Amino acid sequence: MSLTTVICVLWAVSVGQTAGSQHGTNIIIMLMDDMGWGDLGVFGEPSKETPNLDLMAAQGMLFPNFYTANPLCSPSRAALLTGRLPVRNGFYTTNAHARNAYTPQEIVGGISPDEILLPELLKKKDYVSKIIGKWHLGHRTQYLPLKHGFDEWFGSPNCHFGPYNNSVCPNIPVYNNSEMKGRYYEEFEINVKTGESNLTQIYLKEGLDFISQQAVAQRPFFLYWAPDATHAPVYASKRFLGKSQRGRYGDAMMELDDSIGQILAHLVSLGIHNKTLVFFTSDNGAAVMSGPLQSGSNGPFLCGKETTFEGGMREPAIAWWPGRIPAGTACRIKNRKGEESREECWGMRLGWRRVVCQVSGQCQSSAEWHKQVSYQLGSVMDLFTTSLSVAGVLPPDDRVIDGLDLSPVLFNNSLLDRPIFYYRGNQLMAVRIGQYKAHYWTWSNSWEEFNKGINFCPGQEVPGVTTHTQEEHTMQPLIFHLGQDPGERYPISVESKEYRDVLRRVTAVVEQHQKDLIPGMPQLNMCDLAVMNWSPPGCEQLGKCLKAPESNPWKCDWPH
Amino acid sequence: MSLTTVICVLWAVSVGQTAGSQHGTNIIIMLMDDMGWGDLGVFGEPSKETPNLDLMAAQGMLFPNFYTANPLCSPSRAALLTGRLPVRNGFYTTNAHARNAYTPQEIVGGISPDEILLPELLKKKDYVSKIIGKWHLGHRTQYLPLKHGFDEWFGSPNCHFGPYNNSVCPNIPVYNNSEMKGRYYEEFEINVKTGESNLTQIYLKEGLDFISQQAVAQRPFFLYWAPDATHAPVYASKRFLGKSQRGRYGDAMMELDDSIGQILAHLVSLGIHNKTLVFFTSDNGAAVMSGPLQSGSNGPFLCGKETTFEGGMREPAIAWWPGRIPAGTACRIKNRKGEESREECWGMRLGWRRVVCQVSGQCQSSAEWHKQVSYQLGSVMDLFTTSLSVAGVLPPDDRVIDGLDLSPVLFNNSLLDRPIFYYRGNQLMAVRIGQYKAHYWTWSNSWEEFNKGINFCPGQEVPGVTTHTQEEHTMQPLIFHLGQDPGERYPISVESKEYRDVLRRVTAVVEQHQKDLIPGMPQLNMCDLAVMNWSPPGCEQLGKCLKAPESNPWKCDWPH
Repeated sequence: MSLTTVICVLWAVSVGQTAGSQHGTNIIIMLMDDMGWGDLGVFGEPSKETPNLDLMAAQGMLFPNFYTANPLCSPSRAALLTGRLPVRNGFYTTNAHARNAYTPQEIVGGISPDEILLPELLKKKDYVSKIIGKWHLGHRTQYLPLKHGFDEWFGSPNCHFGPYNNSVCPNIPVYNNSEMKGRYYEEFEINVKTGESNLTQIYLKEGLDFISQQAVAQRPFFLYWAPDATHAPVYASKRFLGKSQRGRYGDAMMELDDSIGQILAHLVSLGIHNKTLVFFTSDNGAAVMSGPLQSGSNGPFLCGKETTFEGGMREPAIAWWPGRIPAGTACRIKNRKGEESREECWGMRLGWRRVVCQVSGQCQSSAEWHKQVSYQLGSVMDLFTTSLSVAGVLPPDDRVIDGLDLSPVLFNNSLLDRPIFYYRGNQLMAVRIGQYKAHYWTWSNSWEEFNKGINFCPGQEVPGVTTHTQEEHTMQPLIFHLGQDPGERYPISVESKEYRDVLRRVTAVVEQHQKDLIPGMPQLNMCDLAVMNWSPPGCEQLGKCLKAPESNPWKCDWPH
Repeated sequence: MSLTTVICVLWAVSVGQTAGSQHGTNIIIMLMDDMGWGDLGVFGEPSKETPNLDLMAAQGMLFPNFYTANPLCSPSRAALLTGRLPVRNGFYTTNAHARNAYTPQEIVGGISPDEILLPELLKKKDYVSKIIGKWHLGHRTQYLPLKHGFDEWFGSPNCHFGPYNNSVCPNIPVYNNSEMKGRYYEEFEINVKTGESNLTQIYLKEGLDFISQQAVAQRPFFLYWAPDATHAPVYASKRFLGKSQRGRYGDAMMELDDSIGQILAHLVSLGIHNKTLVFFTSDNGAAVMSGPLQSGSNGPFLCGKETTFEGGMREPAIAWWPGRIPAGTACRIKNRKGEESREECWGMRLGWRRVVCQVSGQCQSSAEWHKQVSYQLGSVMDLFTTSLSVAGVLPPDDRVIDGLDLSPVLFNNSLLDRPIFYYRGNQLMAVRIGQYKAHYWTWSNSWEEFNKGINFCPGQEVPGVTTHTQEEHTMQPLIFHLGQDPGERYPISVESKEYRDVLRRVTAVVEQHQKDLIPGMPQLNMCDLAVMNWSPPGCEQLGKCLKAPESNPWKCDWPH
């Protein structure tokens, strides 16, 4: 197909469909790794090197108030696929108070068999589901993707840390479906020194091929595209290395941006863009503790990954579905009979409401510009519920689901009232309602870590807020107005009426939340060197099985 | 006129003009007051409440690397209108080392009669020039705008501080041309408690009327539109108060954004948009020391107003000239004969270079997307030189002009190599070349001020960088890579080859600069209560003349 065809098809699409579930709708969730809110041009990154994501936002809907469910990768991903807070789905630890936990190689646990994952539910409507990239919900055999509803997998169970020497610690395997095909730093190269790796290109090709296959077979699909190039050690392929104004991290951003553009164009070329919902977001805030070449930007927000400040949990987010989610340049136009249609057009917007569009060379008045920015408070858990809604599948009714169905937001610009909960382990650290955020506990990391140079808030210190001891504020939470003070620098005076009003409202929300909360069995408490990736399925054929040490489990140490 | 007309005219415009000076081109410079880089939706403000500025950027050219010439209002404005660094044009102090100075009421000095201002030069081509809003180049009679080339003025010589009781200190006068029409807080109300003031609406009406008059008279004009609603105490008119998600500052932003949309639409409605260059920027970084309700956002940058960190001097900037500066949605298309034309179109951009456009309902390949973002290092002083170039006037040849002619950037996407100098008083604090910035001196403000709660970097402390004593680094400057580290948090290791290479290059630039530098006579050294706005011209008719105290000049105290 030529690129010309791509666009002709895209913009010839009818955009006047009605609301309601779209049986057979394809679903693509693009989940980035440690990418920050501020890494996109459309969210103010000064180098402005994400033209495809910026255009995706212009053609779709941008969410500046979108959150992850946890400031760390594994719990965030578990929340996305279960629609449930980590404290419910078990992706947390009780080994110490208010600790982030994830799934390193020595973790014993993984996603509980009691949890129901999105692809399992989508099977009810004959979806084919594939995960490409990082799984991170447990690497022992019973926890792998094909045991939890996915039909296909290309990628890896853990982070691409390494290289290891395979004696004390094995290199992480890369799987194709249920068998390993090699290991990072061995068959799947990452040059930590130069930053070169072809992995994003592999993940791109896997994605394009999967989409093509399902389009030909005319089966609805769910693609969970989870590349990890922006997680330290960041990498890019040769074509992108050195191309960014931002260094190696920017190179990885540019390659991901380019790949996303290719995936969207591929949907258009296949003519399935109008029955595919694509949602782009990230698993947690930028890992600013890793320094400027290995981490991204959280824009105006405080701190980053590992923290429950905005920099740790506010995520870039874009929804794209040509024809269903009207582009920012779409006009809603009424003809003389009062019938409404939507047209692609280009004109001048004066304020939010007044607009004049030029459509097919003619000018139209009484048109309404579509608001391409949604202020909805969103969560990665909503992707679970919204995907089910779009697919026409009912969510489980035997458990609490935290995700909302965002369909009214996507298709009708509605705003749904809902809180955002910020957890660290099983400790509720903070809550957002509307523009207000109340911190019940604060800390970044310990003095001990901080004095070793591990800094979750480099260049940012807000006295009494970015504390290095766990500070309890449950009797008198720190409250910020995130509209006026997105950087969480100016707590609202406890003497003010505003404080008292917010406290009353937020207290009711928290009490309700905690009253109903039944924590799941914590899955991230135990570690054991014996469970590491010594002999993943498929290692025999490759001659890559390693000998595991004897089992000697211990309670994992989660320092922050 | 109807809004429909507006847009029809706009988008029917031919966009295939050639480069070169545009005699008779109107020039509008919109200079905001204390507005920060991060205050625009297009630069990542999370509330995204500047739809008109964002659209202006989409229709024009956005500059993420644009700078003021000084982190304080008066010197910045003097630099804009003279095209010269404050250290040359005299808008600095030598009373103490590395101090910011401006024109409070007690200042004796003002813009030197030896300086040649932009409107004086534009007279050579019969331009009519008007300033609306804040002047700030001296309030004594000899310094006022109509003595320095402007034909008209509506606004005020100083900041709208107050209210004063007119005994110890007079309220600031508001002028219409060369006579005062009242004073702030008296005839021109600002309610400091509620934040209500109608001033932006007055400035808007003045601007629209001036544009209409010149359009009817068919005279080329220069409009210097300098509203001050975003300077503390920030204000907005009733229609906008309480409307923003960001509080009072956001209300002021929304009103300015709305006004700018109205001015652009007015140009279109008059059919003069295609011969009017509009440039939008701000005089210095957001005044973050004023707290969240009274100040804006510097996005990812360090500190704010008063400092030579990026937050103090990097400015939002947009150039707009339909037909001459192609919109981001314009395509450069070659036909079979290789002839080039530009067309408004809409399509998908894949990476920077590959693009497919739909033009007049037909798809075109081999088109090139216009890059709507320019990485040019720009300066407010360039507005002087560029305006002259566009008007076909030669700049003065008897003095150093620091401003560049940005025409090649605006019309041909060129990149001009040039340094940015960061001064505080007559001390060169830092220099940017390419992506690198070298700090020769650092300080934010004194411990004494800081301990009183005056904080130029709230929530931001970079040890050894945001110092509270004046730290000299002339032998070994602190060097940052602003692409990789826009927040100036990670100095490049002095042991690295990169450091040595940059140091060599930047040293050559600094030596050249300092060798040629002849500082102007400092204008901001002396203060005197007798020179305050006691009896501005026109006070007699209004019965508003006040009695000045006896002259008792002193060396002004500039604390930071």
